Amino acid sequence: MAKSKYEYVKQFELDDSLLPNTWLVVRIDGRGFHKFATAHGFTKPNDRPGLDLMNACAVAVMKDIQDVVLAYGESDEYSFVLHRSSNLYTRRASKIASTVVSLFAASYVFLWSRHFPEKTLQYPPCFDARVVCYPSDSNLRDYLCWRQADCHINNLYNTCFWEIVHSGRSEKEAEDELRGTVASEKNEMLFSRFGINYNAVPEMFRKGSVVVREEAEVTSLSAKTGLEVVRRKRIPTVLHVDIIGEEFWKSRPELLEVVI
Amino acid sequence: MAKSKYEYVKQFELDDSLLPNTWLVVRIDGRGFHKFATAHGFTKPNDRPGLDLMNACAVAVMKDIQDVVLAYGESDEYSFVLHRSSNLYTRRASKIASTVVSLFAASYVFLWSRHFPEKTLQYPPCFDARVVCYPSDSNLRDYLCWRQADCHINNLYNTCFWEIVHSGRSEKEAEDELRGTVASEKNEMLFSRFGINYNAVPEMFRKGSVVVREEAEVTSLSAKTGLEVVRRKRIPTVLHVDIIGEEFWKSRPELLEVVI
Amino acid sequence: MAKSKYEYVKQFELDDSLLPNTWLVVRIDGRGFHKFATAHGFTKPNDRPGLDLMNACAVAVMKDIQDVVLAYGESDEYSFVLHRSSNLYTRRASKIASTVVSLFAASYVFLWSRHFPEKTLQYPPCFDARVVCYPSDSNLRDYLCWRQADCHINNLYNTCFWEIVHSGRSEKEAEDELRGTVASEKNEMLFSRFGINYNAVPEMFRKGSVVVREEAEVTSLSAKTGLEVVRRKRIPTVLHVDIIGEEFWKSRPELLEVVI
Amino acid sequence: MAKSKYEYVKQFELDDSLLPNTWLVVRIDGRGFHKFATAHGFTKPNDRPGLDLMNACAVAVMKDIQDVVLAYGESDEYSFVLHRSSNLYTRRASKIASTVVSLFAASYVFLWSRHFPEKTLQYPPCFDARVVCYPSDSNLRDYLCWRQADCHINNLYNTCFWEIVHSGRSEKEAEDELRGTVASEKNEMLFSRFGINYNAVPEMFRKGSVVVREEAEVTSLSAKTGLEVVRRKRIPTVLHVDIIGEEFWKSRPELLEVVI
Repeated sequence: MAKSKYEYVKQFELDDSLLPNTWLVVRIDGRGFHKFATAHGFTKPNDRPGLDLMNACAVAVMKDIQDVVLAYGESDEYSFVLHRSSNLYTRRASKIASTVVSLFAASYVFLWSRHFPEKTLQYPPCFDARVVCYPSDSNLRDYLCWRQADCHINNLYNTCFWEIVHSGRSEKEAEDELRGTVASEKNEMLFSRFGINYNAVPEMFRKGSVVVREEAEVTSLSAKTGLEVVRRKRIPTVLHVDIIGEEFWKSRPELLEVVI
Repeated sequence: MAKSKYEYVKQFELDDSLLPNTWLVVRIDGRGFHKFATAHGFTKPNDRPGLDLMNACAVAVMKDIQDVVLAYGESDEYSFVLHRSSNLYTRRASKIASTVVSLFAASYVFLWSRHFPEKTLQYPPCFDARVVCYPSDSNLRDYLCWRQADCHINNLYNTCFWEIVHSGRSEKEAEDELRGTVASEKNEMLFSRFGINYNAVPEMFRKGSVVVREEAEVTSLSAKTGLEVVRRKRIPTVLHVDIIGEEFWKSRPELLEVVI
Repeated sequence: MAKSKYEYVKQFELDDSLLPNTWLVVRIDGRGFHKFATAHGFTKPNDRPGLDLMNACAVAVMKDIQDVVLAYGESDEYSFVLHRSSNLYTRRASKIASTVVSLFAASYVFLWSRHFPEKTLQYPPCFDARVVCYPSDSNLRDYLCWRQADCHINNLYNTCFWEIVHSGRSEKEAEDELRGTVASEKNEMLFSRFGINYNAVPEMFRKGSVVVREEAEVTSLSAKTGLEVVRRKRIPTVLHVDIIGEEFWKSRPELLEVVI
Repeated sequence: MAKSKYEYVKQFELDDSLLPNTWLVVRIDGRGFHKFATAHGFTKPNDRPGLDLMNACAVAVMKDIQDVVLAYGESDEYSFVLHRSSNLYTRRASKIASTVVSLFAASYVFLWSRHFPEKTLQYPPCFDARVVCYPSDSNLRDYLCWRQADCHINNLYNTCFWEIVHSGRSEKEAEDELRGTVASEKNEMLFSRFGINYNAVPEMFRKGSVVVREEAEVTSLSAKTGLEVVRRKRIPTVLHVDIIGEEFWKSRPELLEVVI
């Protein structure tokens, strides 16, 4: 049972290294999450525990993979940004994407009961993943703008849609009514018809979730002295803020800085 | 918040379609499974419930993804074979690999308690994945031979190693003793020193696990009549058999047949 | 002027090796050959010296690159087939394609005057190239069928087109007349209106050109004795034959045979 | 002879588009140019007409392909830089590389007699080509520094080597003598032993050749009036200047500017 005569098959494993000095974005997407949401009775248009669970999984990924400098999530998708200087797994695309998606999907099941103590997970969820390279800081920021604008547009639409449905119309009627409306009309409809000030909708729903490593005080017990020790550490932290404008980036200059 | 000005970033998503008419093998590998096995008190050299769980995950993947015609697993790795005629996700490498690994990792956590009712999962496992194309039937079979020969070689070594260790030696001593020994010497050592006939070691450990879709009788209740209905269906079935020789393939001609 | 501080840029050269054990086809295509043909007064629909020159370039490529086992050309394109066992340039796509197209284009200028002793080359021609992998012998043969069928269809159309134009109609009128006609109608038109039996059109025009290495007697002078020596060698030879049917392949079993 | 049943083979042509918004460098390299130089009696260490011919080919490529903003050549290699905003051939790697190398190689033969009026071209030269993406302006400049530093190092070595050989030593002796020497020692050897001030060696040999589009007055005859018309046009122009320092880039800000 000589193994060596078969080892030539390793030659078929072609290199899939990604271009150096580019931002790497691993985007994972839920597969069949419409059905998954229904099977688990998720609230429409946004299920708070469901989104919290997604965020907890993103934090778990970032705790495991130090090269992820930022993550952005909305709905059933999450984007993980690896710094352009990262050499994780010598930048092999399949290795990076599969590790991230594996950690995320396994964490989703592992952390389910903390976020849904009353609900049994019916079946494991499924996510796919891809890696995309962005050569310039602008390209990366535009990518993140694209996702956050998508979040805004979808959430405004979905908020209207489900208000109409919850008011007694069919989904078909809601669709027909919303077809062709612009943002200002949807805002007006929410306010005048349903008494909702869209700007008062939680930022988590309107802006999605950003995870960055923020400095925080961490208290632990010293192994030596048994006394409490307080240190400042950078901890993956979930925010619901605008990442399209300048402010977010200006106040975190280290994000786009070249690491030496 | 016009989304359209950012949508150009989609152009950076390059196509990663795999060559048509080649066998696709998605191989997933446990990351840091030595530590994982220790943290969960897995038996050495083989943990039966742990291997059963791996197999159950493979079956879950095959139930979900019809294009997988065969899977082969050993230790903390599993290979999934998609038929050369498969057009799953238009053969996009990242989509295929990430979906398989996501299903596998999530199933591992989901099914954990069935296989380890007494053990708490400490943290979610992690697997990576890659897809490799094999152009000819011979190349595919040689790939599977390579993995099964690897299983054999590792298992013979590990069986000796742990017998030596369990007999009171250090791991370093076991390593030293086994260095340079050939298969026949290891067999002899097991027999004369530890009273073990290697051929009596369970085939699951010596040959790994093959999952194929085997016809079986499936009994269900008719929705109409309420009576039991027996049908023959093809069900992912775990076997521990030799896949290096001809017999396995001759008795399953449909595996390598061209699907029309 | 230390070179070493800049050498990191070599890391950006990503591997583009092609899948082993697949047929490699390098297809080169003339760029702007309509204009080139007009500038050099090529006969329509087929310019015999122009096609002879293309064939001479293909022979030059095959004399230089032993891994090319067969070439097929029609119009301003040529396909070069490298054996599935070839390891030329470790199968790097850009290296293979660029070498072939460079040899071809340079030979075109170098050999021009032999084929056009009366015509001055106005400017150098340009070809592009790509490499495509074909996993099975059937795929390779179907590729070649595709090109030869293309040759047939184009030549039948062009023969009709230019007969109509030469009979005094405009190119627009010729196009309009041929739109929607099937092969049998074009054959009939050639015969009844222009007195042309399409099957009597030279095979070079109807079938394109195949270059294979055929055994031939080669006479040379012995360096030692000064006497003529006759040896049998395999020489790239241009044929105008059908490669769609079985006969061509049956009489050259070595083409598809596995090289050991 | 239905073409359609074979057209499925087009699916095997996989996309090889390069990442948007990156500098594209096509580097072509002479294959077997040592032998080629010997066969054509090129002067060592630098053959002026040979280098002029290389430069003329680079100019021909740049006249044909507008997206090339700069080219750099030394010895038997040339690098062509396409602007990061270029969408030439939708950035398909094989199409870009093959077109450049085809134009270059064909021009080499076409222009040979202008540069070597007394020498017959014995056989066509061969070049290979590859495309590499560089994400940042710094990466691009470092690439060009790498090539110019390479030119300097090789030329200094070769100048010494051939002086030693021309002074009556063997090539082996020259190699032995130069092994391990640093730049200052080579400069000193040239000066004290051969009376050569290295800085007086022509810049073309020491710095290689840069081709950029420089504004120049172009005089032509007006088709309407028959009178001479003088216009300013950007013409590919060969320079022998330092491109490692800042000056070259500061005086040509348009090279790295973002094209809108």
